[in-house]
Amino acid sequence: MPHVSLPPNKPGMVALSIYRPDVYSRLGSLADLILHEQHPDSTLTPGDRELVASYVSSLNNCAYCQTIHSAVAAAHLSNVKIVEGVIFEYESSDASPKMKALLKIAGMVQKSGRAVTTEAVESAKKEGATEMDIHDTVLIAAMFSMFNRYVDGLATEMPVDLDAFVERGPVIAEKGYAGPPVPVIVVEKVEVK
Amino acid sequence: MPHVSLPPNKPGMVALSIYRPDVYSRLGSLADLILHEQHPDSTLTPGDRELVASYVSSLNNCAYCQTIHSAVAAAHLSNVKIVEGVIFEYESSDASPKMKALLKIAGMVQKSGRAVTTEAVESAKKEGATEMDIHDTVLIAAMFSMFNRYVDGLATEMPVDLDAFVERGPVIAEKGYAGPPVPVIVVEKVEVK
Repeated sequence: MPHVSLPPNKPGMVALSIYRPDVYSRLGSLADLILHEQHPDSTLTPGDRELVASYVSSLNNCAYCQTIHSAVAAAHLSNVKIVEGVIFEYESSDASPKMKALLKIAGMVQKSGRAVTTEAVESAKKEGATEMDIHDTVLIAAMFSMFNRYVDGLATEMPVDLDAFVERGPVIAEKGYAGPPVPVIVVEKVEVK
Repeated sequence: MPHVSLPPNKPGMVALSIYRPDVYSRLGSLADLILHEQHPDSTLTPGDRELVASYVSSLNNCAYCQTIHSAVAAAHLSNVKIVEGVIFEYESSDASPKMKALLKIAGMVQKSGRAVTTEAVESAKKEGATEMDIHDTVLIAAMFSMFNRYVDGLATEMPVDLDAFVERGPVIAEKGYAGPPVPVIVVEKVEVK
């Protein structure tokens, strides 16, 4: 039973999005930006990004997030096997050497931001990861350290009908997470050397 | 040294806000909503909220976030002692019984969303916490599980001049996080490993 009066019969983040739509608009906008959009300086596809999300959620034992983000990753990658492989044991999975190096960094972030080593970052760069890939991987792992705790910390429900839930994967892969975007704040331009 | 090419001589989230203003606009908007605004169903003041942020950051050993959010909390509460007490040992601090019960929940979330117990939630409610207080406490602890990992996972810098840094507390307490423009902290000297 959830720790607060969430709408009944709604799972995980769906219930939270109804309870606090103002919060969800920020979270959905962040998720769309980082998981759904292709950054020009990054080699990571939405499928790669969802794979990191699914992996971190599995490390945090967040059944809701792991299930839905695995479904979205599988839809993006048109490959369920690689997602299951990464969650079972990423080192022996069919993920690319670059993705394995980034998943290693994501696993470090899941423990603590301070656990990320220069060696792990250098290894990922040697396998072809760009700086923005490193940034985005750290941020995705950090984001799911939040999402997983938000979903489980309030004891949200899991749907009984997992098949119907998993069928949401391709829909989210196509349409993303957010409703109306939050107003984007204009940031003062700063000279960067 | 940061793991990616962040602008030099800018600490923590300030550097990240320049590196990825699109990300920061989402994070700043979320922080302002949850830390800075008074929700009608919640009894938590911005000072109480920043106290949770500071406490969770201390548990995660995130020096940057702990320092700045302690300064903001102290500014809101007009009380440095309570902030230092909570970080040292919240049980023996001057925090109210309600805040202690909520800080206990925040500490559980810091470990894992699944660590939050019904008993801890019921205890907080008995001390006067509303359901929205529970929600917001879980969310703040989850948010700082993200912010701390984002700041430390990319090995951002800490300013050497902590006094100038800490003086930002009252400014953020008054103006919030999101801008426009993003509050930029100019730091003359930074510690470079």
